[in-house]
Amino acid sequence: MKNYKLTIMFDGTRYKGWEHQPGTDMTIQGKLEGVLSRLEGKEVEVTGAGRTDAGVHARAMVANARLETGLSEEEIKDYMNSYLPEDICIREVARASERFHSRYNATGKTYRYTCYTGREKPVFDRKYVWSLEKEPDIEKMQKAAGFLEGEHDFAGFCSNPKMKKSTVRKLDRIDITMKGQYVYLTFHGTGFLQHMVRIITGTLIEVGYGLREPESIKEIFSERKRALAGATAPAQGLCLIRVDYS
Amino acid sequence: MKNYKLTIMFDGTRYKGWEHQPGTDMTIQGKLEGVLSRLEGKEVEVTGAGRTDAGVHARAMVANARLETGLSEEEIKDYMNSYLPEDICIREVARASERFHSRYNATGKTYRYTCYTGREKPVFDRKYVWSLEKEPDIEKMQKAAGFLEGEHDFAGFCSNPKMKKSTVRKLDRIDITMKGQYVYLTFHGTGFLQHMVRIITGTLIEVGYGLREPESIKEIFSERKRALAGATAPAQGLCLIRVDYS
Repeated sequence: MKNYKLTIMFDGTRYKGWEHQPGTDMTIQGKLEGVLSRLEGKEVEVTGAGRTDAGVHARAMVANARLETGLSEEEIKDYMNSYLPEDICIREVARASERFHSRYNATGKTYRYTCYTGREKPVFDRKYVWSLEKEPDIEKMQKAAGFLEGEHDFAGFCSNPKMKKSTVRKLDRIDITMKGQYVYLTFHGTGFLQHMVRIITGTLIEVGYGLREPESIKEIFSERKRALAGATAPAQGLCLIRVDYS
Repeated sequence: MKNYKLTIMFDGTRYKGWEHQPGTDMTIQGKLEGVLSRLEGKEVEVTGAGRTDAGVHARAMVANARLETGLSEEEIKDYMNSYLPEDICIREVARASERFHSRYNATGKTYRYTCYTGREKPVFDRKYVWSLEKEPDIEKMQKAAGFLEGEHDFAGFCSNPKMKKSTVRKLDRIDITMKGQYVYLTFHGTGFLQHMVRIITGTLIEVGYGLREPESIKEIFSERKRALAGATAPAQGLCLIRVDYS
């Protein structure tokens, strides 16, 4: 058995998210395991660097799987791409050390959230953006982002109220840029809680609309209450851009 | 009754084309008429500048409709956009002269065909491109395009063998450009026959692959036989970019 690192791009629109779920085969993990199980002639487990929500996309998700096949990395890639649906693409298959674990060994992740501020309906990229009612104030959002950067207890930005493990995470950097009719929020951190990027995005947009002050971030940290943060931004604007390994 | 000119953008993926068809309400014309009939409280007819095939897109299709509503142009636009699905957008509603007819008065149309030559699956724009097996020779395609420009009998580039009317059309210009992993073919002409742009694109790609010579275009014109031209390029790469009026 050799261990392989897979780099995967997918359009999450049709899927119930990354992780297996009872009663549906429409998960990214399920599709990948189905194809690799076909290749191996027995059940194969695919371990992902994280769980993406239903409707969330990825440019370079990373996973690993142990295989017995005699095919080369390039041949495994071609095999997988020929059997996977057109909205999932294997970008790279590479041999990894026996101990490589795509989730435990990940040292950082980059997510990008895309908002659209145009007045016309985003007919062609409607599945990849959050269409905003109006243009937010980017400078105010950047000020609020400054309060979010660094190591904090992000319990107030997590949708799982029964989270038993630590909710402390390090958010290295948030870049907010406006380009034409699009606002891009790029997040780099060592790890993210459930819905964390989407709740932060929703909160930052409320700041940008003038519905709350940048300083309100501090209270969400100190009170640790989900109700104090903004609404969860819709899934379709979110894309996992990169997973880092040391 | 006032006559209105409508400018429409749509993602044609889910639709059976522009024109009404028995047994389905999934046509662009049908969706527009449904919304305007709701506004007027009676049946409204929408006349389009042309018929697009199933799966073909538009950035600025033009249509006209006669309405009795007291709403302003801006209000009609907002009303239509609020009731239309997210893949159809009314870009503009403008009062037109009583005699304005979107099809008869059109003096030219611009179509763009988009091909993708990357080795990775086009996961995010798979509904808007034709994914080519390899990179075509653009210079050869441009040479062939030179034979196509001008006024010709395009019978060999038409999928309707029983076409009774004239099959002579004037194709003013074909621009073929490569940008990164994309090849764009832009066509401007006074009128187009059924599947004409897609058959020309399929033929030009065969030239680009070296499967036929640029000069083979001349024979298709002289013989007027559909079988001599290339395969019809898939619908999803095609987009109606503009309709001209004098």
